[in-house]
Amino acid sequence: MPGRIRNRQLATKIVEADEAARLIPAGANVGMSGFTGAGYPKEVPGALAKRLAEANAQGDPMKVSLWTGASTAPELDGALAEADGIELRLPYQSDPVSREKINSGRMDYIDIHLSHVAQRVWQGFLGPLDVAVIEISGITEDGKLIPSSSVGNNKTWIEQADRVILEVNAWQSEQLEGMHDIYYGTTLPPYRRPIPLTDPRDRIGVPYLECPPEKIAAVVETEAPDRNTAFKEPDGISRAIAGHVLDFLTSEMRCGRIPESLLPLQSGVGNVANAVLAGLREGPFSGLTAYTEVIQDGMLDLIDSGTLRMASATAFSLSPSAVDRFNKHADEYRSRILLRPQEISNHPEVVRRLGCLAMNGIVEADIYGNINSTHMMGSRIQNGIGGSGDFARNAYTSIFVTPSTAKDGAISTIVPMVSHVDHTEHDVDVIVTEQGAADLRGLAPRQRAKQIIERCAHPDFRPALRDYYERSLAASYGGHTPHLLDESLSWHRKYLQEGTMRV
Amino acid sequence: MPGRIRNRQLATKIVEADEAARLIPAGANVGMSGFTGAGYPKEVPGALAKRLAEANAQGDPMKVSLWTGASTAPELDGALAEADGIELRLPYQSDPVSREKINSGRMDYIDIHLSHVAQRVWQGFLGPLDVAVIEISGITEDGKLIPSSSVGNNKTWIEQADRVILEVNAWQSEQLEGMHDIYYGTTLPPYRRPIPLTDPRDRIGVPYLECPPEKIAAVVETEAPDRNTAFKEPDGISRAIAGHVLDFLTSEMRCGRIPESLLPLQSGVGNVANAVLAGLREGPFSGLTAYTEVIQDGMLDLIDSGTLRMASATAFSLSPSAVDRFNKHADEYRSRILLRPQEISNHPEVVRRLGCLAMNGIVEADIYGNINSTHMMGSRIQNGIGGSGDFARNAYTSIFVTPSTAKDGAISTIVPMVSHVDHTEHDVDVIVTEQGAADLRGLAPRQRAKQIIERCAHPDFRPALRDYYERSLAASYGGHTPHLLDESLSWHRKYLQEGTMRV
Ligand SMILES: CC(C)(COP(=O)(O)OP(=O)(O)OC[C@H]1O[C@@H](n2cnc3c(N)ncnc32)[C@H](O)[C@@H]1OP(=O)(O)O)[C@@H](O)C(=O)NCCC(=O)NCCS
Ligand SMILES: CC(C)(COP(=O)(O)OP(=O)(O)OC[C@H]1O[C@@H](n2cnc3c(N)ncnc32)[C@H](O)[C@@H]1OP(=O)(O)O)[C@@H](O)C(=O)NCCC(=O)NCCS
Repeated sequence: MPGRIRNRQLATKIVEADEAARLIPAGANVGMSGFTGAGYPKEVPGALAKRLAEANAQGDPMKVSLWTGASTAPELDGALAEADGIELRLPYQSDPVSREKINSGRMDYIDIHLSHVAQRVWQGFLGPLDVAVIEISGITEDGKLIPSSSVGNNKTWIEQADRVILEVNAWQSEQLEGMHDIYYGTTLPPYRRPIPLTDPRDRIGVPYLECPPEKIAAVVETEAPDRNTAFKEPDGISRAIAGHVLDFLTSEMRCGRIPESLLPLQSGVGNVANAVLAGLREGPFSGLTAYTEVIQDGMLDLIDSGTLRMASATAFSLSPSAVDRFNKHADEYRSRILLRPQEISNHPEVVRRLGCLAMNGIVEADIYGNINSTHMMGSRIQNGIGGSGDFARNAYTSIFVTPSTAKDGAISTIVPMVSHVDHTEHDVDVIVTEQGAADLRGLAPRQRAKQIIERCAHPDFRPALRDYYERSLAASYGGHTPHLLDESLSWHRKYLQEGTMRV
Repeated sequence: MPGRIRNRQLATKIVEADEAARLIPAGANVGMSGFTGAGYPKEVPGALAKRLAEANAQGDPMKVSLWTGASTAPELDGALAEADGIELRLPYQSDPVSREKINSGRMDYIDIHLSHVAQRVWQGFLGPLDVAVIEISGITEDGKLIPSSSVGNNKTWIEQADRVILEVNAWQSEQLEGMHDIYYGTTLPPYRRPIPLTDPRDRIGVPYLECPPEKIAAVVETEAPDRNTAFKEPDGISRAIAGHVLDFLTSEMRCGRIPESLLPLQSGVGNVANAVLAGLREGPFSGLTAYTEVIQDGMLDLIDSGTLRMASATAFSLSPSAVDRFNKHADEYRSRILLRPQEISNHPEVVRRLGCLAMNGIVEADIYGNINSTHMMGSRIQNGIGGSGDFARNAYTSIFVTPSTAKDGAISTIVPMVSHVDHTEHDVDVIVTEQGAADLRGLAPRQRAKQIIERCAHPDFRPALRDYYERSLAASYGGHTPHLLDESLSWHRKYLQEGTMRV
């Protein structure tokens, strides 16, 4: 690892992962780097998991609370959950093992707006942060930390933790140096000032993370790659959803509501998002920008084609082939990509000022436009709200996308009443399925119901939705948002009993 | 009305209310002033209601869509609804006649975050604004408009409307001149800049509303008072809730999380809010500020006692005796009160920067901390979300208050699952009833359930809530937010069938 640890003092702190993991006491609150499978520590979590598993096996149970930027990878979330080593997890996860433990009551999980995390830690609401474990891509001569493929909450963890363990990852491109913009201007009220960002391209901070060397308890070396799963090619459903989103954006542009360069795009990850990004290349748009959480493959394509001028995010989330491409052409991408702390990438003030066009995936929507992003059948957490609320509430236009059915058609994602609410009717502008788009702006609940049923629901479920709506209109206690409370969740009950919502 | 209309050109436009009302065409979108019963037009709405009623009686139905700041008064909302003259109402109302029409399906209502209204109108999502009817307290020599006892959306209505009707109200204190701060710096993206407000005391605009004289189609004179209902003396329940809120704030202060001057207070209107304000006088606090929607009686008391340095709001909402007091001592209050457009009083950017302590009333909460502020039994709208979401999401600490029961104890306001969601679990820090306070910060859903049941629910309903929770823990599909979907709304169903939630 020549040249990655250019500071002499910190070079003396290099230890093996096992030794570093021993610095984490039982019951500790541990803040780790990592956002959407990028930039998470690769060595210490495994060593810690081993320690926890051993302690648990010896009947001397030991757990930690795990805080990150967002989701990480099997080597981190998976390993620690597998070892039954996580007491409390926050603010976001998408790990199958963790999901299982949370839903079986063996792990506590706090699902938090990603923009809220840093301030809640600063406020002390979540207790003290004992240890931070942060992946970086290098250390400069004068001890500055070169961030890695995600920034997430790293600035906050380093500032708040009693001690810091660094993982220096030589697999990460050296070209990352200079691509980050770490803003050190946030603080607690009453001392907050405006965040001076008015364009996704603005640099308002510095390219390095700072940490007093005496806080750095250990440095671990690694060359392990980020998770990097390949994207599936968009299927017919994703392409149909993307098509409706693109039609909507085109028509907004044509009627003068948004410029040809659109407004800064925010997009969740996944196939639908990737299909929309692919579609943007062919549309009548140019000079686009993104102000989002994650840079995924489609964004590199858009940069290559000249459609996307600039993307601001807090993390990469690339397939292996896209990582290669990035590394080969890092010089060109460097001027077009900025990574920021998630405090800033998701900041309500900035998202609202820029007027993002937000596009996020959901679990289900109801006929009045309320959205469930997190809970299967009202009780089983899937991932978490992530940044979707930061963007949906503050966006210029907030779009939610989903296939109209799930589980091979057994589930309608358009239901009479959602079984859990993450985004209320007040924060939802447009719902898009492969069937079409319902533009809810300026509509009252009864008007929305017609749009959502007729444009978004799968034709197989439309008659039952119409029937529910009509009977609700006639017999509801109140007529503003007509409901029949003995039936409103009956579709979910039916699925739990019979494995299908179909009649 | 000597001296109220000091501009000669505009003085020539004085007409009777009937004549002004005839300028409003059938089907028009009409933007009226008014916020929480203050500063609404007193003459034109009545004249318009008469016209609409006559047209409707003649079988030539005529309606308008009515946009305001927030709720108004019987002479406005009530009269127009009574005449069956409102097609669509937004963004907030609390009028009994309107509520009846909305819930019987005869009026459409869009319930919008108060901070979102101006931008949605600018974006054109709600259609063109045909006419604005704005109460002001006077016109200067050079034609500037002196705002009245509320600002609300008046700046936006005047800018967006094709024609403007002014009502000059000589009942309003002449001392209002200079108390307003109208910020003209908002715009649509991509041209938005930071809002340069970092302290509730900051003046960032001008004291007058501006309107090109050629847009002003008529000026109507009035001396009618604002609605001004007296507050009830706080009862035992309100005082108990206030006591728990004050204990919470005191303990936050003592453990160093907030300064002795607290952070800018936001408080909903009503008896509980007033009781909290009264309690603040006796607490260990000093040098307080408020950044809120409405100045109510309790705030004047706090100013009198020297506890409150400064209150920023968008409207007054005073009892008749408080109005007298204000008028008598307007000189002293003037330097301590600022009224702003609701775009600014409720702006997410500013609320978050200032770190408000938000305190709002609710309809019901569930055991996991989700909040319903608007819908009785999931379907019947009461008022609307108002500004509660603007504050709750962006506050430093978001407190929700409610008596633990309603309808003489027949209803538990703590339920297994709320029947409608306005504030999700992600935006709720503390729930307070007369029974106690549940501090939910840093708790996962299962931990929250215990706090809410044991600290907030009425003892009569605790056993049934515990029972629901325990059985859900055992039998829920997912264990993150345990629920039994066939029972989760059964308390509401029981109330609808039997008039009580009690077993
Ligand atoms: C909602 C969310 C889970 C959808 O993810 P996705 O990958 O697009 O969705 P998929 O269609 O692949 O669905 C994921 C799983 O949920 C299931 N599912 C989808 N809708 C469902 C529904 N209404 N009911 C039950 N299960 C459903 C799918 O069948 C699939 O199950 P499987 O993994 O067992 O096959 C995801 O977008 C998310 O976590 N969102 C919240 C956070 C967020 O918005 N972040 C964006 C960045 S700000
Ligand atoms: C929620 C809200 C209606 C409570 O208002 P309030 O005046 O404090 O509450 P009250 O206890 O007087 O209740 C009002 C009515 O609702 C009824 N009620 C209260 N809780 C209820 C419940 N859970 N189920 C059914 N009815 C309920 C009361 O019985 C009362 O009915 P009545 O008028 O027929 O007697 C009010 O705070 C509101 O509109 N909030 C949303 C907007 C907001 O928060 N604005 C704040 C400024 S930002």
